[in-house]
Amino acid sequence: MSETLQYSREHHPEDTVVEVGEAKIGGDHFTVIAGPCSVESEEQIVTVAKAVKAAGAQLLRGGAFKPRTSPYDFQGLKAEGLKLLSIAKAETGLPTVSECMGADDLPLFEDVDVIQIGARNMQNYELLKAVGKLDKPVLLKRGRANTLREFLLSAEYILAEGNSRVILCERGIRAFDEGSRNTLDLAAISMLHERTHLPVIVDPSHAAGIAKLVPTMAMAATACGCDGLMIEVHTDPESALSDGLQSLRPEEFAGLMGQVRQIREIANGK
Amino acid sequence: MSETLQYSREHHPEDTVVEVGEAKIGGDHFTVIAGPCSVESEEQIVTVAKAVKAAGAQLLRGGAFKPRTSPYDFQGLKAEGLKLLSIAKAETGLPTVSECMGADDLPLFEDVDVIQIGARNMQNYELLKAVGKLDKPVLLKRGRANTLREFLLSAEYILAEGNSRVILCERGIRAFDEGSRNTLDLAAISMLHERTHLPVIVDPSHAAGIAKLVPTMAMAATACGCDGLMIEVHTDPESALSDGLQSLRPEEFAGLMGQVRQIREIANGK
Amino acid sequence: MSETLQYSREHHPEDTVVEVGEAKIGGDHFTVIAGPCSVESEEQIVTVAKAVKAAGAQLLRGGAFKPRTSPYDFQGLKAEGLKLLSIAKAETGLPTVSECMGADDLPLFEDVDVIQIGARNMQNYELLKAVGKLDKPVLLKRGRANTLREFLLSAEYILAEGNSRVILCERGIRAFDEGSRNTLDLAAISMLHERTHLPVIVDPSHAAGIAKLVPTMAMAATACGCDGLMIEVHTDPESALSDGLQSLRPEEFAGLMGQVRQIREIANGK
Amino acid sequence: MSETLQYSREHHPEDTVVEVGEAKIGGDHFTVIAGPCSVESEEQIVTVAKAVKAAGAQLLRGGAFKPRTSPYDFQGLKAEGLKLLSIAKAETGLPTVSECMGADDLPLFEDVDVIQIGARNMQNYELLKAVGKLDKPVLLKRGRANTLREFLLSAEYILAEGNSRVILCERGIRAFDEGSRNTLDLAAISMLHERTHLPVIVDPSHAAGIAKLVPTMAMAATACGCDGLMIEVHTDPESALSDGLQSLRPEEFAGLMGQVRQIREIANGK
Repeated sequence: MSETLQYSREHHPEDTVVEVGEAKIGGDHFTVIAGPCSVESEEQIVTVAKAVKAAGAQLLRGGAFKPRTSPYDFQGLKAEGLKLLSIAKAETGLPTVSECMGADDLPLFEDVDVIQIGARNMQNYELLKAVGKLDKPVLLKRGRANTLREFLLSAEYILAEGNSRVILCERGIRAFDEGSRNTLDLAAISMLHERTHLPVIVDPSHAAGIAKLVPTMAMAATACGCDGLMIEVHTDPESALSDGLQSLRPEEFAGLMGQVRQIREIANGK
Repeated sequence: MSETLQYSREHHPEDTVVEVGEAKIGGDHFTVIAGPCSVESEEQIVTVAKAVKAAGAQLLRGGAFKPRTSPYDFQGLKAEGLKLLSIAKAETGLPTVSECMGADDLPLFEDVDVIQIGARNMQNYELLKAVGKLDKPVLLKRGRANTLREFLLSAEYILAEGNSRVILCERGIRAFDEGSRNTLDLAAISMLHERTHLPVIVDPSHAAGIAKLVPTMAMAATACGCDGLMIEVHTDPESALSDGLQSLRPEEFAGLMGQVRQIREIANGK
Repeated sequence: MSETLQYSREHHPEDTVVEVGEAKIGGDHFTVIAGPCSVESEEQIVTVAKAVKAAGAQLLRGGAFKPRTSPYDFQGLKAEGLKLLSIAKAETGLPTVSECMGADDLPLFEDVDVIQIGARNMQNYELLKAVGKLDKPVLLKRGRANTLREFLLSAEYILAEGNSRVILCERGIRAFDEGSRNTLDLAAISMLHERTHLPVIVDPSHAAGIAKLVPTMAMAATACGCDGLMIEVHTDPESALSDGLQSLRPEEFAGLMGQVRQIREIANGK
Repeated sequence: MSETLQYSREHHPEDTVVEVGEAKIGGDHFTVIAGPCSVESEEQIVTVAKAVKAAGAQLLRGGAFKPRTSPYDFQGLKAEGLKLLSIAKAETGLPTVSECMGADDLPLFEDVDVIQIGARNMQNYELLKAVGKLDKPVLLKRGRANTLREFLLSAEYILAEGNSRVILCERGIRAFDEGSRNTLDLAAISMLHERTHLPVIVDPSHAAGIAKLVPTMAMAATACGCDGLMIEVHTDPESALSDGLQSLRPEEFAGLMGQVRQIREIANGK
């Protein structure tokens, strides 16, 4: 069967490079997506967008539709949030990434450059099929308790519909310890690269759940050969409406970018 | 916060009894849902429906939209499958249960009595909100790696939309051993009953993944005080289009029903 | 390799029945081991021993050497505890089961009828080899995160030394939920019976960690075909020096014994 | 309670630096332990010892007593292996690290500089107490499914006996995926450093289980701030008697040492 699977190296030996505006993800490129967990206001998203661009991020992330465990938690600014994200995109020229939780909302994402499918929806096959019909890249996050095979077969749902621009994102798996929110499965990077031509990025922010762990986990993921990172940055983490605890300040993010670039060169033996 | 949560005992001390036609789920009732994993043909579903009714099942299950890990596996007969399920319902009078994977398909489920939300969609919040707006019961399966708190908060998404007829279903959690497909978390039954007024049923078929384990796990779940069972029955497991390995034959199912009834009486100290 | 493994059905097709005094474990027998987590005083152990014998237990358990996560928790009465256990044995005629944590302590266990190896020591190979040289039965508990293959190979360490009287004990595996201390893996009972001729008993007390879950889990394990149970009983759980929360009172235990006997008959189709 | 725990920062704020001959582990030091999984012959251990010393390792590892899941797998050269390890120590001057599986074997370890307690014995309290009475450092590996609290309390067993020279070693936790043998829990490094003054090293060889993953995981662990690494090196991995698949060749190890040194400087912001 594996020969016929579109995600497989047998099907497509060379690395897939996903192009988003001027940004390239995969192959020899190393790409950083940064921004706030949630879009909260025009000032917030524009300020963060300019800061992460200055620090070297190639794409801007910003959540407008937020999957929250409780229905009573902040659910995002929705359509309004996407409008504000477009303003930040216009001001900085950064392509944008934002999560979509249901096919019916896709029309609102017209100006969003990369559609994110969250970990909770990794096996929401109706949504995977819907984004498979789009002509824009999809960033697919691994579910918290899904094997690599399940992850790749979810990507296959998108590829099978004709959309070949899929970016895989490891964001931590559920383990038994109370200490960290999720355990980043860094060995998955090499194992995914071996089995698929699709780019593999890592989200250390959700894995760590604590800002002080983010830089080390980001450097670690880079040393393991990921094709990029997705990192939460907020100008005022304390007052963030969601995930403030795991957001870096722009200056912390800028410092990390420098370290990450050097680590990538060393890991690549350059 | 827990006072305000609609699933909680604080909010609603007495057990919720969900009525589906003549069937009642919850409280002092013990209810069995049985049928094939997938609806395959009129003859198959009608034959199984009559057999499970004769053996004492109160509801008929039959999958028309099948969530499969691979996009190339049998995906179900879809709309046609739901038509065949309605025929079996008409011939036997059994209310029906079938899984819906996306809000856009809901209109096709008009004649289905209970909408099932599968484990993969337990945190598909758009779908939960959509079924929360329906005037029919929802059977919500626990995700393979979700805590009881996450499970109950997903139920809350449905309750919060105004639909109070939610049935919880434990179907096994992901563990580390290769042996069984999933490990049935039977302690969850008592713990859920303590925290919520919603009925809790168990699906031993998906947990076991092997037919010979189903009867013992069904009896075990009954001994643990579940409010009912959902069991896969097929007249010809070997040729089933999905999950044949875990389906019981009608005669096996009939024998199990007798054992389950006796075990429930003993466990209740009657 | 499996042909050569002494635990395997290929090596020894018929069930092994372990005899301990008048008690028999395995085959068609159903055997209950009961007693306090820790031996605390002569009055306590003798009172509990008489109570569990009256309720139908065939063996008496009592911990003298206690493996505790913290070095500052009560570690058991050690040699003195074993003396008190012998007194209870003499007064009731019940064979005894007690945990040994190190080969050097074995001489103190001369009057103990069954040596228990705890979950933490399942892969303490030096200890397994030492008890493999004894001429008395060994009750081997499954580690909290060990596969069935690892469990059986640890039993093989004992068998390989010449001691064929090994009793396997499932006591719960580590899962991700905060709710229960351990998740009882009941499907393991059938899977172990398929692969090995050794008897398989279940300890619902340690799996549940809460007394009110013990009866239901004990009945569930019985429905799944285990060869016996090991249950903690204490005359005054509130003041127990260890695991009081999960101990049953003698009267609760007596009631459970009656239910368990009936459930076993029903599960066996008698 | 935590104030009284000897492992805690409250008890001992500054980092503990464990001295072994000229090697120092902890604080500002970065220390590498390398060598074969098993000592196999004088030529093998001496050759590897010279190679890892030349590449910058400060300590030599070599297993003489091997904990193997099956009693029929190679169990190590035992006393003879320790003699050969001493020869390699004499020829290179490298202090040695070797695993002890039972207190009765400790007299044989007189010339071994650091006693290793393996993951399977992390809660073998009799062994922990025995090494707690020694006047030499102990390298304690985290069990595959133990929480950080359980890990630290096992260290406390050693400290409580009077031996303050304990080195903690993360070697991977059991997860649900089939892909990698164990998942390295790198977030544990920071979390342990926060809670304890004891040095924390990482063993990427056992976590990865595949040689090609070892360099990336070693660099990742270094980026996360571990105090050192323990790496398996073999001159002829294909013919190794144990764990050959995860052993690096001396030249691979030498290259990795250079990368690790640079990554540590970058991660430390130097």
